[in-house]
Amino acid sequence: MSVTIHDVAREANLSIATISRALNRPETVAAQTRERVLVAVAKTGYRPDAVGRSLREGRSRSIGLIVSDIRNPFYASITKVVEDAAYERGYGLLICNADEQPARAREALHFLASHQVSGVIHVPTGESTELLQELIGKGIPIIDLDRVSGLADPSAVMVDNRQGARLAAQHLIELGHTRIAVIAGPPHLTSGAARLAGFEQTLQAAGITLAPQYLTYGDFREASGRRAAEQLLTLPEPPTALFVANNEMMAGALGAVLELGWRIPEQLSLIGFDDARWAKYMHPPLTVIAQPIEAIGRLAAQQLFDQLDQKASAQIHVLEATLIVRASTSVPRI
Amino acid sequence: MSVTIHDVAREANLSIATISRALNRPETVAAQTRERVLVAVAKTGYRPDAVGRSLREGRSRSIGLIVSDIRNPFYASITKVVEDAAYERGYGLLICNADEQPARAREALHFLASHQVSGVIHVPTGESTELLQELIGKGIPIIDLDRVSGLADPSAVMVDNRQGARLAAQHLIELGHTRIAVIAGPPHLTSGAARLAGFEQTLQAAGITLAPQYLTYGDFREASGRRAAEQLLTLPEPPTALFVANNEMMAGALGAVLELGWRIPEQLSLIGFDDARWAKYMHPPLTVIAQPIEAIGRLAAQQLFDQLDQKASAQIHVLEATLIVRASTSVPRI
Repeated sequence: MSVTIHDVAREANLSIATISRALNRPETVAAQTRERVLVAVAKTGYRPDAVGRSLREGRSRSIGLIVSDIRNPFYASITKVVEDAAYERGYGLLICNADEQPARAREALHFLASHQVSGVIHVPTGESTELLQELIGKGIPIIDLDRVSGLADPSAVMVDNRQGARLAAQHLIELGHTRIAVIAGPPHLTSGAARLAGFEQTLQAAGITLAPQYLTYGDFREASGRRAAEQLLTLPEPPTALFVANNEMMAGALGAVLELGWRIPEQLSLIGFDDARWAKYMHPPLTVIAQPIEAIGRLAAQQLFDQLDQKASAQIHVLEATLIVRASTSVPRI
Repeated sequence: MSVTIHDVAREANLSIATISRALNRPETVAAQTRERVLVAVAKTGYRPDAVGRSLREGRSRSIGLIVSDIRNPFYASITKVVEDAAYERGYGLLICNADEQPARAREALHFLASHQVSGVIHVPTGESTELLQELIGKGIPIIDLDRVSGLADPSAVMVDNRQGARLAAQHLIELGHTRIAVIAGPPHLTSGAARLAGFEQTLQAAGITLAPQYLTYGDFREASGRRAAEQLLTLPEPPTALFVANNEMMAGALGAVLELGWRIPEQLSLIGFDDARWAKYMHPPLTVIAQPIEAIGRLAAQQLFDQLDQKASAQIHVLEATLIVRASTSVPRI
């Protein structure tokens, strides 16, 4: 075991605080105390001190990640992938949570700038693009993840939200559903708008109208999913199938389904966007549209580091979603 | 809408990068370019520039949070609580993920030190305490969360792991189970050791022996829970009840239960430590020992800020766990 400041303190018969002061701010202790400490350091072979070095040498190299909701398991998983990629490149990762609030996102951008990150990967929450543009102007590359921020010449990595929603609609159509409802995300977020557009267009192409009472909106958070599902399931003529546009709203919808005592899939077919880690453990396990989380996180990090190395300019990567059929969808039985 | 650097660029008929250089490193552009930019700034009324100020003024005040596993919803929820508390105090939060690896935890501590955080809240992963002691020696308070790091005079906030595990054991005993199995956490982590000790002692006090083949260990991660559950459920005489010591291992155990086709609670009563957000949406909803997440996160932040304000010295807060009986436990039917 290596020698610690404890050993020095014991040897010198002084407190750790005093040892620390004597080594770091020698002017704050008496000359004879200083000498006692130096003798103890020599006797014990103590090497001061890794943390001190980190403090003196200033910032480690770091990149920033702003997720829109750290409690959403999709972003928690993305965070882990980005962190691993940063770690492999010798960068630390500063993680911030915008909590789906544009004001928080702006604070986080200022915060990361003040910590002089080399670049930022962020999930836009609808904040204005001025601040992003300023950061880019300072030579700090910005990568949009999952949603597009509206920057003029963006670097972005995301799933093909339209194509994923199309798969969901096709699956329900093929099963024979016509009374199909949606809990859509916020229309001002690109992911919210694209998932609804892809879903609705596919229904239309099959001659199915998305009835106004079957179209509800949430804010990608749990409580909104619960409210929307309660509304849909208590309609005079409820839907036989429901598409929920993200995993957090799905959690809320499941709460409403349980509370109202609906049987899945006998009374309602349920399909969600995002394969949350708990989705496969449900009974019945949930049919979902899955995003390639590992690839999204890796590509975002890769793109950021390529820009830092001046190896690449801005580009948009759109990755394919896949349909995972489990047991929450079936032919309509009502 | 406020004036942006775009407007200046348009007015001056120069690129954004040139505007940025002219304003931030005027020596790098020709005098006449500088003048063109300044005229455009005056004409448009552009105020340079918030990000620049953040960069010049150096670090915002921040505290650090090191969680042991960002994908674990328990820590994701704690992160949100701590972040809200920091935000209310005007501090930013730098989040790091140790990924249950002591080496990563050490890197994260160095990283936070180099970013000059005012204090650190961390979930120990079994890393040595030297580095923590050094940080404390530098006047950076450290708060242990969820587990105890082994510091001599720790500040810590955690649930009463023994008491929580006792509740789980009592619940199973009262239902009439005697063939009771455990998937325990790592014994070198205080939470792992205390949950097993509390559970085993309660069985013993009731005259029930925890048979060696019914005692398995995992590492608080999903895959280990699956392996342990597979092992337990394929024993010649499998248990009638199973206590799983955290939510990640519970996710894995549920995977094994589904794959092997066991019915819950008819063939196996299942109780977990941690009320993950998905636990109540399972069918049947899971019986769990719940931690007071909001209180744990709030108290940890409060304690850190009190120490920064010199209002409090080190203390340990131990909060009570509660039993939430849902539908995954019943009397043994085999």
